[in-house]
Amino acid sequence: MVSNFRFASVPNIIFGAGKFSELYDIIANFGKNVLYVIGGSSLNASGKWDEITSEMLRRSINFYSISIAGEPTPSLIDKAVKKFRQKNLGLIIGIGGGSVIDAGKAISAMILKSDSIKEYLEGVGDKIHNGEKIPYIAIPTTSGTGSEATKNAVITEVGPEGFKKSLRHDNLVPNYAIVDPKLVVSCPPSITAACGMDAFTQLLEAYVSPHSNPVTDTLAYSGIKHVKENIISVYGHKSSDFNARSAMAYGSLISGIVLANAGLGIVHGLASSIGGLFNIPHGTVCGTLLAESTKMNVKRLEQADRDGERGLMKYAIVGALIAGKGYEVNLDVSYYCSVLVETLEMWTEQLNLDTLGKYGIIPKDIEKIVKKTQLKNNPVNLNPEDIKEIVVNRI
Amino acid sequence: MVSNFRFASVPNIIFGAGKFSELYDIIANFGKNVLYVIGGSSLNASGKWDEITSEMLRRSINFYSISIAGEPTPSLIDKAVKKFRQKNLGLIIGIGGGSVIDAGKAISAMILKSDSIKEYLEGVGDKIHNGEKIPYIAIPTTSGTGSEATKNAVITEVGPEGFKKSLRHDNLVPNYAIVDPKLVVSCPPSITAACGMDAFTQLLEAYVSPHSNPVTDTLAYSGIKHVKENIISVYGHKSSDFNARSAMAYGSLISGIVLANAGLGIVHGLASSIGGLFNIPHGTVCGTLLAESTKMNVKRLEQADRDGERGLMKYAIVGALIAGKGYEVNLDVSYYCSVLVETLEMWTEQLNLDTLGKYGIIPKDIEKIVKKTQLKNNPVNLNPEDIKEIVVNRI
Repeated sequence: MVSNFRFASVPNIIFGAGKFSELYDIIANFGKNVLYVIGGSSLNASGKWDEITSEMLRRSINFYSISIAGEPTPSLIDKAVKKFRQKNLGLIIGIGGGSVIDAGKAISAMILKSDSIKEYLEGVGDKIHNGEKIPYIAIPTTSGTGSEATKNAVITEVGPEGFKKSLRHDNLVPNYAIVDPKLVVSCPPSITAACGMDAFTQLLEAYVSPHSNPVTDTLAYSGIKHVKENIISVYGHKSSDFNARSAMAYGSLISGIVLANAGLGIVHGLASSIGGLFNIPHGTVCGTLLAESTKMNVKRLEQADRDGERGLMKYAIVGALIAGKGYEVNLDVSYYCSVLVETLEMWTEQLNLDTLGKYGIIPKDIEKIVKKTQLKNNPVNLNPEDIKEIVVNRI
Repeated sequence: MVSNFRFASVPNIIFGAGKFSELYDIIANFGKNVLYVIGGSSLNASGKWDEITSEMLRRSINFYSISIAGEPTPSLIDKAVKKFRQKNLGLIIGIGGGSVIDAGKAISAMILKSDSIKEYLEGVGDKIHNGEKIPYIAIPTTSGTGSEATKNAVITEVGPEGFKKSLRHDNLVPNYAIVDPKLVVSCPPSITAACGMDAFTQLLEAYVSPHSNPVTDTLAYSGIKHVKENIISVYGHKSSDFNARSAMAYGSLISGIVLANAGLGIVHGLASSIGGLFNIPHGTVCGTLLAESTKMNVKRLEQADRDGERGLMKYAIVGALIAGKGYEVNLDVSYYCSVLVETLEMWTEQLNLDTLGKYGIIPKDIEKIVKKTQLKNNPVNLNPEDIKEIVVNRI
């Protein structure tokens, strides 16, 4: 039985070490005015930005650039749109981590609009974006968010009334995703760790989502396989190993495709509320909460009797995969769920993931975090006490 | 290790029994002039066409229709384009088997051009299509070609100088694919059988292709699993079983996605040459040649020593899947390759697939067939004698 499902567009994907250079031929199809959305200093430091500028000059392509530091805010996007609206852009290119890719995606979607991005953010404004945009190419330099393959841009305003919400439309999937593992090798260990856990979280949450389908399931399984085999080594002795970096880049890309089509769960519900209230990197929130959240989900699924069977089975399949077992054996569900939870706890230690307390979160903050947290497509209902317990254990 | 790969866009997929009706809301986004490309009489007979016309009237959408009988020829496409070029179409919708879907795709791509489609066909004309088209929605009524997810339209001219060649561009992937298994239940057994074998051929040829990648592999494996479990029953006692029809519709859809990204092999090489020379349904050619072609490929891969290992392993994985075994066991490659070939031979019998002789092909035709046959992305080189042997055994 194949149940009903929807699957949205994926970008044209160009994957492989050294494939960054194919960018220039693609640009030729999109007019003579290009905006680069880039991160802080790493592109400059690596000499990549020099390469880009000289190629643009050689090809007589007029280009602008904007540098994004930190996670994009509504006012940052609005200002960028105002600055570049009259430039007759034919193409926007985002090169960086998830924040940069999301910023570029948001600018490409807002440059044809005259009002603030706030009006279109889910749960913030009340306008619906119609999907019109300028063509967009996403080029990740971390392996984590999968934003190069998603249809949403996450916009953050940190503070007591803060939020971390999405601009979303099927048509916002980037036109091209160029995934070049060479761009990731210089990513420092702590970011590699947090991003790797973010990718794994996205794969796992999409896999156990009630909205998963055969296409997302089969892709997520493949992504999980690649990430579980490399997440520890790429943080350690294989940080400059192209094979390990390729596998993580693949897992991250796939995590974007599956989250866009199956949704996410409680970890990303918490990442949204915590990320709106506190200045803390998205990957760190996900990574630090994944083991505890999975443990809680398994516990509640076990208590849900028959209703929980599907969710438990899926967690068990992932546990079995991690243990090196095949897909269709007669699984000991309870045992392999434990394998999964214990592995995630071990990874949390091995990757030295910060606790939330490191970012100033204290016990009295928990109430307001829980109040703002949505379950999203979590495989089982959790009550506020459950959510509180997850957070308490990682402060 | 994840090697370099490209993955082109997939359509927005809407999959599920009864999902056809979502078409009408989608149409609203694409202006007021719509062209329906449909097949022979089955839409009329089922009452579906009445439903469509009354919905169009109710929503004040101006619509035209063109009926396609048989596989589309260049002159059919050119005439259709001429007839509808001035109608200011905002959308084209193809509802039917592979021929109809391909015809609609070709019209949507040619309506903005002023010359003949022949100029743009691979191996026939020398112009390169630039991908400009009118938005296109593909709605299959058979489970076979996967054309609802591919970037090419196959155009046929039958005769001594005939051809069966593609108009191809990444942007020709339909904007939407609505896959509604309810539309397939009335498909007669012989067409169900031929189409099912076409889908399986596409999945298998893409899976063993040297251009396969982790994304196509994982999807093809999932498609093969669904098709192998239902291909016989849907031809027989489960022809009106929605679950079986859903699984085949899923397999067919996936076959289109993977062939568009990994390519096809000798069976489709032969389908192209034979289909250009003789009037014989595409699915029948594929179905009748699959077992013999796979047997030959396995034989040549076994003789290729180390070079053949990857191809043999992939055939063995499919054989093991058919035998109900999991993915990552220590496979007896030779044994499971035999399982695969024997199963395909059994299916050929059980599905009563016609031999080529039924369509007037005689031994003296073989020379010219072989001469016109390309290997495409076959996993191993075959010489003309090998190809001859495949055809001889199915005359």
